[in-house]
Amino acid sequence: MKYCSHCGAPVQLRVPPGDDRKRFVCEACHTIHYENPKIVVGCIPVLENKILLCRRAIEPRQGLWTLPAGYLENGESVSEGAKRETFEEARAVVSNLVPFAVFSLPFISQVYLMLRAQLDDLNFGAGTESLEVRLFHETEIPWDLLAFPVIRETLRKYYEDRSNGRFLFHIGDILKDITE
Amino acid sequence: MKYCSHCGAPVQLRVPPGDDRKRFVCEACHTIHYENPKIVVGCIPVLENKILLCRRAIEPRQGLWTLPAGYLENGESVSEGAKRETFEEARAVVSNLVPFAVFSLPFISQVYLMLRAQLDDLNFGAGTESLEVRLFHETEIPWDLLAFPVIRETLRKYYEDRSNGRFLFHIGDILKDITE
Repeated sequence: MKYCSHCGAPVQLRVPPGDDRKRFVCEACHTIHYENPKIVVGCIPVLENKILLCRRAIEPRQGLWTLPAGYLENGESVSEGAKRETFEEARAVVSNLVPFAVFSLPFISQVYLMLRAQLDDLNFGAGTESLEVRLFHETEIPWDLLAFPVIRETLRKYYEDRSNGRFLFHIGDILKDITE
Repeated sequence: MKYCSHCGAPVQLRVPPGDDRKRFVCEACHTIHYENPKIVVGCIPVLENKILLCRRAIEPRQGLWTLPAGYLENGESVSEGAKRETFEEARAVVSNLVPFAVFSLPFISQVYLMLRAQLDDLNFGAGTESLEVRLFHETEIPWDLLAFPVIRETLRKYYEDRSNGRFLFHIGDILKDITE
């Protein structure tokens, strides 16, 4: 941020009075521009013991596999966002969404909210951001070709819970890995 | 948003190519300015069956009671943010944080993440944004003087779970109420 989005004057990075963090502050109109983490919402779409994964058509991690997930939009609920992303990336309709995990990624200021969901039927396919979409048995999950550590951790917890016979809600932090 | 924070030129609100939502787009440097919901993190600090509430010193809802909560900051995890807000507003130290509920407030593009927590001791007091901080038994909760519907819903679910003898993780939407 170099210019004030309210008045167009240059901004400065400094600690405003009564605050303890540096913010972009407009010296002309005195607007303080706060920047906050973004929420990524996503689904674990499940049908008959299989999970739907998408192979990414776009960078980062083009060609690698992921769960359908993306930025929550203004005016949207968490469940609405997770359903929308699942439809956009996998052309799939899901229902019975249940919260499964929240992961903080402080190094990129993101919070992932992942929900378990029932994949309604076999009507799915690659959205514009996917090369390919398919169902995987646990033994088929391409662990070495997953796009992001947060997806690996989500799937790991999912199968752990399933083998324990009960699903919990999880919280965790994902730290920067060298490939990020 | 009226001006591009990157180059200072005026922005226009329009649907970028390949998108389906209006965004602020800079016609000069072509930056697309995405706006996304903010995450509010908060605690239910519990000590010996009592819950710590703060009476707000600031608008909105000055003088009304709330749980310690506030915007997650960049570079922070959900748990770190919840602990920080609890210290800032109630000068209280909490531990053993467990996720309790996620509430979407689509009418103001906020997502609340509330965590149950153990209040470590009786060293608490009003931070700069609070007039007063005190512990409440269930029978003492000032239900008619709570600052926000999301706080009322959090406390209602908390006591419901407690009376059922088991705490779950909850998801819900808070719709605009006439007093917002």
